[in-house]
Amino acid sequence: MEQINNIEVVPCTSSNYMKPFRVHYSQNGTRKSWDFMRTHDSVSILIFNTSSHCFILVKQFRPAVYMCEWEKHQPAPAGEEAGGAGDAADAAGEEKASGAGDVADAEKRSRLPPPSAGVTYELCAGLVDKPALSLEEIARQEVLEECGYDVPVAKLRRITSYRSGVGVTGARQTMFYVEVSDEDCVGEGGGEPQEGELIEVVKVPLLEAMNFAYDENIPKTMGVIFSFLWFHSNMAPKYKISTNV
Amino acid sequence: MEQINNIEVVPCTSSNYMKPFRVHYSQNGTRKSWDFMRTHDSVSILIFNTSSHCFILVKQFRPAVYMCEWEKHQPAPAGEEAGGAGDAADAAGEEKASGAGDVADAEKRSRLPPPSAGVTYELCAGLVDKPALSLEEIARQEVLEECGYDVPVAKLRRITSYRSGVGVTGARQTMFYVEVSDEDCVGEGGGEPQEGELIEVVKVPLLEAMNFAYDENIPKTMGVIFSFLWFHSNMAPKYKISTNV
Repeated sequence: MEQINNIEVVPCTSSNYMKPFRVHYSQNGTRKSWDFMRTHDSVSILIFNTSSHCFILVKQFRPAVYMCEWEKHQPAPAGEEAGGAGDAADAAGEEKASGAGDVADAEKRSRLPPPSAGVTYELCAGLVDKPALSLEEIARQEVLEECGYDVPVAKLRRITSYRSGVGVTGARQTMFYVEVSDEDCVGEGGGEPQEGELIEVVKVPLLEAMNFAYDENIPKTMGVIFSFLWFHSNMAPKYKISTNV
Repeated sequence: MEQINNIEVVPCTSSNYMKPFRVHYSQNGTRKSWDFMRTHDSVSILIFNTSSHCFILVKQFRPAVYMCEWEKHQPAPAGEEAGGAGDAADAAGEEKASGAGDVADAEKRSRLPPPSAGVTYELCAGLVDKPALSLEEIARQEVLEECGYDVPVAKLRRITSYRSGVGVTGARQTMFYVEVSDEDCVGEGGGEPQEGELIEVVKVPLLEAMNFAYDENIPKTMGVIFSFLWFHSNMAPKYKISTNV
């Protein structure tokens, strides 16, 4: 996960992953339209290891997150507002067109944020893309594939569900909680390399969890923060920890 | 917000709101690519009315959420797996091509989920699209425009920040907390109708908040659930409520 370079950004005219649609509809008689993307629903799982009293998270390089930081490092093209989507492609075009001298190379490198700027801590998660499987079964598979713990479906406890990306996708995400022990660990996890996944499994000790959750220097999803807080509110008595978070 | 009909879905070849990009990059020497969208960062605000001991949320029809439910109501086209993105456009095309008889109309209506299926409860929120303004100032404006409360910037307390949509956008979202009173209410809120916003301001009594948060029949974002739980963990002593959530 350490080295990221040779970045090129191009407009994406056709994608297997992002398919924009436009819906026209009438709301109380007024004709409207909205652009959206269809995505799969998803599951996420808060994993607590009862042997080591650690939460099990995954950590991975997220190109979309990195590109947010990358844009902030680019010089604003003359006559355009900094930070717009168009600028990313423009700046990349400029880089490709610029000379290959040492000064230009050094300038390019100085514009690259560190790879860590694109690495986020997340709950173990996966898409609901297997119609034959229940949400719990999909969650169980993700816990095994990404984190290496083999647990029976019955151990998965549903926390709640909610809508994500309500402006663009609106998919439903369902969050589960599962307790694992060192004995359940049957592999290293890490995702499916053949699918391009490069996932690192990380442990966050229970006693450090709330500091971790609210430390804004540690890039993470809201799912991590919410689920840690949920644990403290709901599991604290069982594990005899303070709820003073 | 009550009536939604005449739905047509078409592929979206060019959008002012969703601009897909593709980034090519090298990770530890391996060439990779990723499709992503550039979006603005955003702010969201948990508003607590100290006069009525209610949380102030917004409620709006979200086409992207509605379309998720709409797809589930469509018959699967022959030879294709149900629920894929392509099916939405196909099904819409079928509807447009079908006859206008009473039976066909009745069949169409039966395929429409109720409008409430696309309505979500959310925190007051807005995009960070004004470079001259601080996050707090943008948050202040959203509280005024969407919910009608005029509060000084100094009253906004930062809760935390995190990454949203890490697969597609990776934008940073910053969450604030603000206490308002009935005296701060200077308007009805509701957003900017000229920008197509049709936002309803809703109050959730403090004592009902945690039931509201975990009731999966009430469609909402994770921000609502997390912020209610945050309030119970952090503000409970001040408002003498139980933390037993």
